[in-house]
Amino acid sequence: MTASYVERLARRSREAGSYLCVGLDPAAGAPVEAVAAANRALIEATAPYVACYKPNLAFYEQFGIPGLRALEATLAAIPEGIPVIGDAKRGDIGNTATAYARALFEVWGFDAVTASPFLGRDTLEPFLAYEDRGVYVLCRTSNPGAADLQNARLASGETVYERIATTAPGWGANVGFVVGATAPGELRRIRELAPGTSILVPGLGAQGGDPEQVMAAAGREPGLVVVSASRSIAEAQDQAAAACALRDALNAAAVPAP
Amino acid sequence: MTASYVERLARRSREAGSYLCVGLDPAAGAPVEAVAAANRALIEATAPYVACYKPNLAFYEQFGIPGLRALEATLAAIPEGIPVIGDAKRGDIGNTATAYARALFEVWGFDAVTASPFLGRDTLEPFLAYEDRGVYVLCRTSNPGAADLQNARLASGETVYERIATTAPGWGANVGFVVGATAPGELRRIRELAPGTSILVPGLGAQGGDPEQVMAAAGREPGLVVVSASRSIAEAQDQAAAACALRDALNAAAVPAP
Repeated sequence: MTASYVERLARRSREAGSYLCVGLDPAAGAPVEAVAAANRALIEATAPYVACYKPNLAFYEQFGIPGLRALEATLAAIPEGIPVIGDAKRGDIGNTATAYARALFEVWGFDAVTASPFLGRDTLEPFLAYEDRGVYVLCRTSNPGAADLQNARLASGETVYERIATTAPGWGANVGFVVGATAPGELRRIRELAPGTSILVPGLGAQGGDPEQVMAAAGREPGLVVVSASRSIAEAQDQAAAACALRDALNAAAVPAP
Repeated sequence: MTASYVERLARRSREAGSYLCVGLDPAAGAPVEAVAAANRALIEATAPYVACYKPNLAFYEQFGIPGLRALEATLAAIPEGIPVIGDAKRGDIGNTATAYARALFEVWGFDAVTASPFLGRDTLEPFLAYEDRGVYVLCRTSNPGAADLQNARLASGETVYERIATTAPGWGANVGFVVGATAPGELRRIRELAPGTSILVPGLGAQGGDPEQVMAAAGREPGLVVVSASRSIAEAQDQAAAACALRDALNAAAVPAP
């Protein structure tokens, strides 16, 4: 039987001794011809230190079809055994969601994706049907305006993000959450509400999240937490050193390390 | 000065005497080599009857890069003067949303897009910054599970979709809404709350929405309402007749016609 996504992520996390997810997000200013080579260099420099990689599709789509060719080349450069999260945040109705799931899991072959819960449970089912893949549902995002809707209080007394945290784990064993490092209070609350759910935590580094606060809130069970950084590593003078330092900071905050 | 999206849509809607938006959504089973030709035939058959076209990106992405080549060919086949809505439902944080806006408005050149409000106002601003383009914000979608979150009641007494309907029009003159034909009560309420906002109404035809209920609820001001159908036209024996009949049904329900 195929291992689940969380099992594969946990295995890699233990082997690499790392909770670090490195974002593969080419900058707009880059010439598209240079994107694949830059990503290959970034992967080569950081692979020893990562639990997983996370390309965000927007940064490839902004270059049109040549950008997607660069995504192909990027995925081909990721060593076997390192899970890859397709950060796509898709969300659409039934048959359309099925087409997105096919694109992300079959065409691109991602091990996991990010997806939006705004349209309701039925629109996540086509993704969840791929039982050996992970589906990180947006729960509390890292941006300044995240609170507009996600922290809105419902008549039931809970907030929108709390409602998602309590209901979504029941939708499938492969449900995970996206919770921003910039909201450590919400991250702690979501971990309380969903103790066994895998959480992807973006927003470290350039966005200002703190490794100690994140690990204290998210827990340290391998497979159940990965923390992602993109610009702070890709733009570092020494990418390997930046990734190594961030891995170590996360491990130090998570004693005992994985 | 360039006309706004709503002005361009209104002009086309009046010229064609139509509120009809035809979806350009290739089926999964189709060989990708046939997609562009099938779309060209659909466009040729339906162009006299449409206010606008709406390709949903999922149905091209499901074929990988060859699917996006078919999207290129499809867009090239749409006659000048007919607005095109890129149905993408993207939603991501600031710099990522900027990349998606660049992809949709600059690479693909869409006149308008659909976008998700789940991440908050700041994540829609990169789209709204393109002032001559339209941004249809998801307000109440057409799927069965839409009510899960969108109809949830907030502590303030309003529902989530009502909150969006009252706040989003203040985010920019180019804000529109997506409201499903399958929810005529919500459509009527959203029109009350946002009388001057352009509404894209999917869910007619295969999904079961009714032209009379839709036009009674959404109003009949050209540019402020388009009603979309995809499968019921693309899969018709006679696509021209199907589009003409639906245009006529919408006009009959909207007397006086545009």
